Amino acid sequence: MVSKNQKKLIKSLYQKKYRKQHGLFVAEGKKVIQELLQAKLELHALFTTEDEIFEVNDQKKYLISHEELKQISFLTTPQVALAVFFIPEVRQIDLEGIVLVLDDVRDPGNLGTIIRLCDWFGVKELVCSSQTVDCYNPKVVQATMGSITRVNIVYQDIEAFLLQQKPTIPVYGTFMEGDNIYEASLPKKGVIVMGNEANGISTPIEEIVDKRITIPQFGLGQKTESLNVATATAIVLSEFKRKIS
Amino acid sequence: MVSKNQKKLIKSLYQKKYRKQHGLFVAEGKKVIQELLQAKLELHALFTTEDEIFEVNDQKKYLISHEELKQISFLTTPQVALAVFFIPEVRQIDLEGIVLVLDDVRDPGNLGTIIRLCDWFGVKELVCSSQTVDCYNPKVVQATMGSITRVNIVYQDIEAFLLQQKPTIPVYGTFMEGDNIYEASLPKKGVIVMGNEANGISTPIEEIVDKRITIPQFGLGQKTESLNVATATAIVLSEFKRKIS
Repeated sequence: MVSKNQKKLIKSLYQKKYRKQHGLFVAEGKKVIQELLQAKLELHALFTTEDEIFEVNDQKKYLISHEELKQISFLTTPQVALAVFFIPEVRQIDLEGIVLVLDDVRDPGNLGTIIRLCDWFGVKELVCSSQTVDCYNPKVVQATMGSITRVNIVYQDIEAFLLQQKPTIPVYGTFMEGDNIYEASLPKKGVIVMGNEANGISTPIEEIVDKRITIPQFGLGQKTESLNVATATAIVLSEFKRKIS
Repeated sequence: MVSKNQKKLIKSLYQKKYRKQHGLFVAEGKKVIQELLQAKLELHALFTTEDEIFEVNDQKKYLISHEELKQISFLTTPQVALAVFFIPEVRQIDLEGIVLVLDDVRDPGNLGTIIRLCDWFGVKELVCSSQTVDCYNPKVVQATMGSITRVNIVYQDIEAFLLQQKPTIPVYGTFMEGDNIYEASLPKKGVIVMGNEANGISTPIEEIVDKRITIPQFGLGQKTESLNVATATAIVLSEFKRKIS
C-alpha cells in the first residue's frame, strides 16, 4: 500500500524545488532501478507490483497493485516499479581528462542522451550551468538508462568554472563557424562547452572559449540550421576520443 | 474560419491510414511551413493567426483565431500556423552515394533526428522498413525542422532491397560487436543499416550484412547498454563522411 504521505512526497518530487528540499528523486522501471541499486545509491523506498525481482531491505519495499502504481507513476505506461532514492553527493571535478560543460541545455531528453554519451565515451565529468535542466528530473533519469550513476554531474556557475580552468586547460566550444573538428588536433585533457538548444553558447561564455570548433556540413547548398545538441555532442565526443585512443 | 469538414480532415491526418488515403500531411509552425513552401511542396491549405507572414494563394489561406488553432493543432503550444501539404512523390533511389537503411526505427523523435542528420551529412537516400514510423507522422515532421524536403525517404521491404544491392554495393551494419568504425576503411558508395531501438538489426537483415561495424565503448568496465539509434547514426555518418571528404 502507498500511504497518503508517500503519495504526496512522490508527487512533490516532480518539482526541482522539492527534490532539493528532500534530497530525493524518483526512478521508474526494473532496469533503471536495478542499475541504481547496483551502483549503491541509497534507497529511500521502493514500490513494486512484483515482490521478488528486487533484493532490497523489506522495510523499504512496498508491494502495491498496478492501480496504485499508476497513481504514483510519472509515466503514461508505468513499468513494474517506482523507487525513491537519495540524491548522491557530487565529488570534486577531476580535471585530468575531458570535462563536458553544458551552457543551458533545457530539454530533459537531450540531457539524458548527453549523460548516456558521457558514460559511453568515458567522460566522467559533466558540469552544468544552473539554468540547465535538473539531472534528477524524472524524464532525464529515465532517458539516462542508469548511466546517471557513472557520471559526476555538477551544477554551478560555469562562467566562474571556466575562468578558473582557462589558464591551465584549453577550453573548446562548438559553433557554426570554427576549425573543422575532423582536422583539429584535440587533447586528452580539456574542457568542451556545448550550448543551448535555441541560442547556442551564450556571449559571456563564448568570450572565454579558446578554441572554436565546428562540425562541417556536407550537404551542398543546403539549409540545415544546426544539429541537435545531443547529436552534436555525440559527434564531438566521438572525435575527441577517437583522436586520443 | 475552420470548417467542420476541414477540422475532421486535419484530425484524421494524425493517423497514417488517413494520411495515405488522402495523400496529405500536417506541418506546424512558421519555420517548418516556410521551409516546406520554399521546397515547393504542394500546399493543400494553410491556417494561420498572422495573415502577412506567408505568401501563398489566398484561396488556400484561412485566417483563424488562436482558439481555432488550438482546436486543430497537434502541439501543446500551437505556433502561429498549421498547414496541410500533399505528400510528395518519392524518386528512384540513387545508389551512387551513401544510402541509409532503417530496420524498424519506431520512435518519431529518433526518425526526425536521423532525417536531420542525413540532411546535414549530405546523405540523400533514406530507405525505411515498412515497420519504421511514418515520416509524415506530425511528430517526425516537427523534429526534422524542414530537412524532410531534402532527403528522399522510401518505405519498402528492406530485405528485398538489400538482397538486390548486395552483389554490387557493400552493406554495412552496426552491431555491439564488429570492426572498430574508427579503424575501418569506409567507401564513398555503400549501404548502412541501423537497427530498431530495442532489438537492433533483425536476424534476416543481419544475415545480409557484409561488414559488421561497431562504435567502441571508451568507458572502462562500464555497462552502458548501447547508444540511442539517433546518436549512433550521428557518429556513423560522421565517420563515413569524414573518411571520404
